[in-house]
Amino acid sequence: MQIYMDNAATTKMSRAAIEAMLPYMEEIYGNPSSLHSVGQRAGEALIAARERIAGCLSCDPEEIIFTSGGSEADNQAIISAARIGEKQRKRHIVSTAFEHHAVLHTLDRLKEQGFEITLLPVHEDGLVTAQQVSEAIRPDTCLVTVMYANNEIGTIQPIAQIGAVCRDKGVLFHTDAVQAAGHLHIDVRAQNIDLLSLSAHKFHGPKGIGALYAKRGVRLTNLIEGGMQERGRRAGTENIPAIMGMAAALTEACGHIDDSAAKISALRDRLIAGLSEIPHSVLNGDGECRLPGNVNFCFEGIEGESLLLLLDDKGVYASSGSACTSGSLDPSHVLLAIGRPHEIAHGSLRLTLSEETTAEEIDYAIRAVKETVEYLRGISPVWRDLLNGTRQFVTAE
Amino acid sequence: MQIYMDNAATTKMSRAAIEAMLPYMEEIYGNPSSLHSVGQRAGEALIAARERIAGCLSCDPEEIIFTSGGSEADNQAIISAARIGEKQRKRHIVSTAFEHHAVLHTLDRLKEQGFEITLLPVHEDGLVTAQQVSEAIRPDTCLVTVMYANNEIGTIQPIAQIGAVCRDKGVLFHTDAVQAAGHLHIDVRAQNIDLLSLSAHKFHGPKGIGALYAKRGVRLTNLIEGGMQERGRRAGTENIPAIMGMAAALTEACGHIDDSAAKISALRDRLIAGLSEIPHSVLNGDGECRLPGNVNFCFEGIEGESLLLLLDDKGVYASSGSACTSGSLDPSHVLLAIGRPHEIAHGSLRLTLSEETTAEEIDYAIRAVKETVEYLRGISPVWRDLLNGTRQFVTAE
Repeated sequence: MQIYMDNAATTKMSRAAIEAMLPYMEEIYGNPSSLHSVGQRAGEALIAARERIAGCLSCDPEEIIFTSGGSEADNQAIISAARIGEKQRKRHIVSTAFEHHAVLHTLDRLKEQGFEITLLPVHEDGLVTAQQVSEAIRPDTCLVTVMYANNEIGTIQPIAQIGAVCRDKGVLFHTDAVQAAGHLHIDVRAQNIDLLSLSAHKFHGPKGIGALYAKRGVRLTNLIEGGMQERGRRAGTENIPAIMGMAAALTEACGHIDDSAAKISALRDRLIAGLSEIPHSVLNGDGECRLPGNVNFCFEGIEGESLLLLLDDKGVYASSGSACTSGSLDPSHVLLAIGRPHEIAHGSLRLTLSEETTAEEIDYAIRAVKETVEYLRGISPVWRDLLNGTRQFVTAE
Repeated sequence: MQIYMDNAATTKMSRAAIEAMLPYMEEIYGNPSSLHSVGQRAGEALIAARERIAGCLSCDPEEIIFTSGGSEADNQAIISAARIGEKQRKRHIVSTAFEHHAVLHTLDRLKEQGFEITLLPVHEDGLVTAQQVSEAIRPDTCLVTVMYANNEIGTIQPIAQIGAVCRDKGVLFHTDAVQAAGHLHIDVRAQNIDLLSLSAHKFHGPKGIGALYAKRGVRLTNLIEGGMQERGRRAGTENIPAIMGMAAALTEACGHIDDSAAKISALRDRLIAGLSEIPHSVLNGDGECRLPGNVNFCFEGIEGESLLLLLDDKGVYASSGSACTSGSLDPSHVLLAIGRPHEIAHGSLRLTLSEETTAEEIDYAIRAVKETVEYLRGISPVWRDLLNGTRQFVTAE
């Protein structure tokens, strides 16, 4: 059995997305900036794709710019807000301790430039509150950036409430919606979002393409200078095939978001119930307020990396957390942010499901994880110490 | 007849490039940063693709980073060199007046930050010399950036000589090789190039992917912060399908560069000869030292845009210059740089060929251009003024 349960890292492209791309590789391959008809046909496709994507977010097409992915969109959103802030002598930004590194590292760079950054602590359930945001905002705050749903533990933040706070206080609000887009309803108007990032390969679209929504009137700073594409806000020949693939994938995903969420979250809950039977295990993040497809556990006494490699042998493809930081020996900053001690943060397992996941796969995965955790504990000196009382358990039985 | 002669704007993807991409969309779609085998298979492909691309440039794989395209690579190369320069209190950059806007606009931004920019004038033949570069270098020069081949008029610069000058003077040398890669031999070692940008969709690879070569030891500044992809120099999930497509396209192109250049330049010369018969026309750029596929003419007394639209009706897809600036009413900065007066710079036509171009297409294009120029002159008040002597011709008959 081959079970791909790493859909938060990246997804398999849908047939619809691939088929939307192909004609723009071989037939309508023109440069949309060209005046001739081969270019103009590509240009018309670009307009239509932008409209479809805007429709999925409840914004206007002119409020969408295409980027090379979620990281670029996050960088551009935050740097743009910082440049706007600077002009008003506002150099304070509010964010959270468990953002994606595309946000955190951009904030680090701004810190070097004299910005002050408040990273809100995250509750043990993996949530921040609008009240925390409200209390952190100061007269010199130029931006609040809080992710829509966490990429490791899947918890969904109270975006509409945070949006309302930001609107009331007159502060720009950015959300990294890379894990949410295509999986949860997004309405940037109703939720008072000023800037939002998304990435196509997280919802069965192509890699290398994403979008940045920027509310009308929010002036973007270019990361990439050059031609006048994207109305002068992002240079480089438009990646029409990928944009068409993204539009198809997002439209498809948003077309059945409720059915899909119901189906996937039922499987998620089955998986959570199964893994909860493992002694000294703990679910990371709130059980309810989380992405339909996200399961994240810590198991005491084992190393996450060994668990992944043995699961791989059994055909279960999972991760310990973010793919972007795998290979790092540090424990996940997300698990530390929700208060998991170092010793168990090392033993984390993230299983992320998709529309294609089946109940058989869930049951197979439960058995595989149970067997593997048991095996690893059997050879683990840490587990022996826990059993004989030399070390203390941090989780309940 | 449908004749695509805008290959400098973008190219049709080759079958080899498309076929190299597809398996990585549906089968080996994992994130190369993931530890499991689906990710690791993608990771192995990434290593192989990097090796193939490095092989085409005569550099080491570790000297290649993947970007979203040529514009991003240009931006990152120049900003990186500027940051290195700043640390040594060197804030002077040498470039040319006819670079691509991805270079010129990045230099504009550095100017705002206190850098001094020397833009070398370009000779009427579309060439700059190594001596000009040598004379412009000062003790505080941190970078020379000169394009490999011009995107509008196709002239090939003396890159190896400029590289030698830069090496002797200890100044970093960047070249925008977006029009050259896959079309001309590149050897970054022999040519003493420190930084080089390329873009896949200019050589029948996919859009949305490019590469930056940075010589070992040249520290890059990130444009996009986040995960540790590309050894921490460019964040964002690697666009494996596009990288595979680029590697296939570049390997294919470099495998028959001499045959291809011989074939295409023979067609180019036939086209130049045909269009030269049009009275009061002039070839822009040197006739010999130019890209195999580039033809660029000015015709007195007509507007380039009308010419393009009428050619489009005849099935000839061409451009007036760079696609990135089309829609602009200003005459081409490239044509002004080589000394073309405003009045004729408006009447330019760029025809750029590919491996697929045939002799029949060339002959058809010659007839189409001749007829269209004649027709447009027939209704042009400017042409009437030229004929009756109210205006002066600037070209010979």
